[in-house]
Amino acid sequence: MIYLDNAATTQPNMVALEHAQDYLTTRYYNPSALYREGYEVSGELKKARSALLSKVADETLFELVFTSGGTEADNQAVFAFAKRGNAVTTAGEHSAISAVFAELKNRGVVEPRIAPLERNGQVDVEKLLALIDEKTSFVSVMHVNNELGSINDVNTIAKLVKQKNPRVIFHSDGVQAYGKLPFKIAKEIDLYSISAHKLGGLKGIGGLIKRKSLALPAYIFGGGQELGRRSGTENVFGIQQFAFAAEEKFLTLKADFERIMRLRERLWDGLDQTIFQRLSPTDGTPYILNVSAVGLRGEVLLHMANDKGLLIGTGSACSSNSKTRYSKVVLACGYDERVADGVLRLSFSPKNTEEEIDEAIKILNEIGLDLKNRMK
Amino acid sequence: MIYLDNAATTQPNMVALEHAQDYLTTRYYNPSALYREGYEVSGELKKARSALLSKVADETLFELVFTSGGTEADNQAVFAFAKRGNAVTTAGEHSAISAVFAELKNRGVVEPRIAPLERNGQVDVEKLLALIDEKTSFVSVMHVNNELGSINDVNTIAKLVKQKNPRVIFHSDGVQAYGKLPFKIAKEIDLYSISAHKLGGLKGIGGLIKRKSLALPAYIFGGGQELGRRSGTENVFGIQQFAFAAEEKFLTLKADFERIMRLRERLWDGLDQTIFQRLSPTDGTPYILNVSAVGLRGEVLLHMANDKGLLIGTGSACSSNSKTRYSKVVLACGYDERVADGVLRLSFSPKNTEEEIDEAIKILNEIGLDLKNRMK
Repeated sequence: MIYLDNAATTQPNMVALEHAQDYLTTRYYNPSALYREGYEVSGELKKARSALLSKVADETLFELVFTSGGTEADNQAVFAFAKRGNAVTTAGEHSAISAVFAELKNRGVVEPRIAPLERNGQVDVEKLLALIDEKTSFVSVMHVNNELGSINDVNTIAKLVKQKNPRVIFHSDGVQAYGKLPFKIAKEIDLYSISAHKLGGLKGIGGLIKRKSLALPAYIFGGGQELGRRSGTENVFGIQQFAFAAEEKFLTLKADFERIMRLRERLWDGLDQTIFQRLSPTDGTPYILNVSAVGLRGEVLLHMANDKGLLIGTGSACSSNSKTRYSKVVLACGYDERVADGVLRLSFSPKNTEEEIDEAIKILNEIGLDLKNRMK
Repeated sequence: MIYLDNAATTQPNMVALEHAQDYLTTRYYNPSALYREGYEVSGELKKARSALLSKVADETLFELVFTSGGTEADNQAVFAFAKRGNAVTTAGEHSAISAVFAELKNRGVVEPRIAPLERNGQVDVEKLLALIDEKTSFVSVMHVNNELGSINDVNTIAKLVKQKNPRVIFHSDGVQAYGKLPFKIAKEIDLYSISAHKLGGLKGIGGLIKRKSLALPAYIFGGGQELGRRSGTENVFGIQQFAFAAEEKFLTLKADFERIMRLRERLWDGLDQTIFQRLSPTDGTPYILNVSAVGLRGEVLLHMANDKGLLIGTGSACSSNSKTRYSKVVLACGYDERVADGVLRLSFSPKNTEEEIDEAIKILNEIGLDLKNRMK
């Protein structure tokens, strides 16, 4: 079986699981407990927090609040700060942002404004800036697009946004970037969401990185964990495994980046380009290659690939629950419905081999040709 | 080491961990993925959901929404339905409810009303009912008090509440009850929160049981998982381990109940009753024995016990982050600050043995006497 759906979720890092095992067996204490064993777990959470944070941020300026995942982190950021005037985001966002903006619209508290995308999946920065005025309270621009892999230069965008309105709170969804791109959060970014299960961590754990001087209201209230910003007994095992997995991921980040870039290009070069059109830009994250079998149905190809042992995605796994057939992001890039309907998302992990890529090429070309012939 | 802080968190069930291991190693797929392997995981979530739900509820009337824990479930219930008029709860609630009621008060959207407790830690039902009027939108009464172990007969209370105002949405926090008390949710209960890590499950997973015919608004928005009621990639491993752990817990629920009742009484009978006063009622959950070393500081005793290898709690582990020194719940029962300051919470699991109880008695009597002598 060849797994090329790593943008949906990755196989947990086994070494990290092994390392974190203790927190299931002997160190299962509640970190809020007042005895030594509880304090120790609490201290180890602090270390994990610092390890995860320091990889992308200056610890004197930023801090990390653990959440139940990227979706909760995104929700907390938006609901905390999109409270008055207007709030601006992009047409490329993951549903964890776009669905919250839709909810803001329903509630009628703020005016949501959506910046369009360029053909390559990046936000049109000029048009984004044009949406920002003195009444803008909040801006959210994703770092790496989860469907196309397009990278927004969020550090620069945050600077430009703040030049236009310094009171704006700027958030970026970094779920597909963290542990994959070389990156340090600029001081103009106020909030940045991360997730564990996209880099060998577990489902159900993530975090919201925030500027220290920013007062972040709680979204989940209770026992006052996470300094009152996120209540609920901490998912100690998930957090520790996340920290161990990230530690390993960041060690090899650059080598992985280059190797996976080669795998991505090897895959694209091998695909029958009379069938497949490339939607992912070459300067996007190497971890995602989005192609469209124009005129064919991506979902049918996905099932055909499945039968041959190749696991791939169409759009975002998270939009499979929605009723819309077409990727909104691909349409927002200016492609038509025939392109959007044929979309396949091939996404990588450092575990993928050249042999797997070659086998994937063979399968994709075969099923593409097969379906194309059947369509005639 | 003797662990008598099982109301704070339990050691994960090792057999259940073993059973769920697959979801970390080979079946790590995103349950929203469209290929067979993803669908299969999605189907297994369905089975886990049904297994967990059917233990306490009629599946034709109720359904279960997975959350990141009891705290999130409580938050979602309150924020979803305490939206107009007034909302009623009790002075005995866990902070996952009481902090949300405090937030409601801050926001000024609904009028929060708090029913007082009886001396035994149960809510004063007559006074609770007196707070309910035609403007009451939401009522939340916890099932088992997490500090004293007092049991509220929430099925009967829900019936009485609905007799007074049938439009009320009735919620109960069942975190300390689920898997421990023989109980079936009556049809008058609309919402019921559960948590995994109090019965051998993992931290970071829980659920909100809801009446099927009740439209539950999302609290976390995004990919539309959990039928749109709770977005975010499902914590598959946590859910499966929860289901396996609960399966085992419910199998032995009655035997555990009786055995732990004997352990609790053995512990109480062995304690030096010139030092310790019992606060837990005899008809409360057997899993919790709350005593006060009146005039002594519980926190000091906790550390002294810690040094002798006995791990116990004072109040709720979750209130250790708060600034208030005294258990609000104990004060709400009508005890004075000397009693509240001396509180120790001893909480059990089926793993505890008579030998451990006897050793705990010895330690508690020793340190109680020691500290009492030092106070003179």
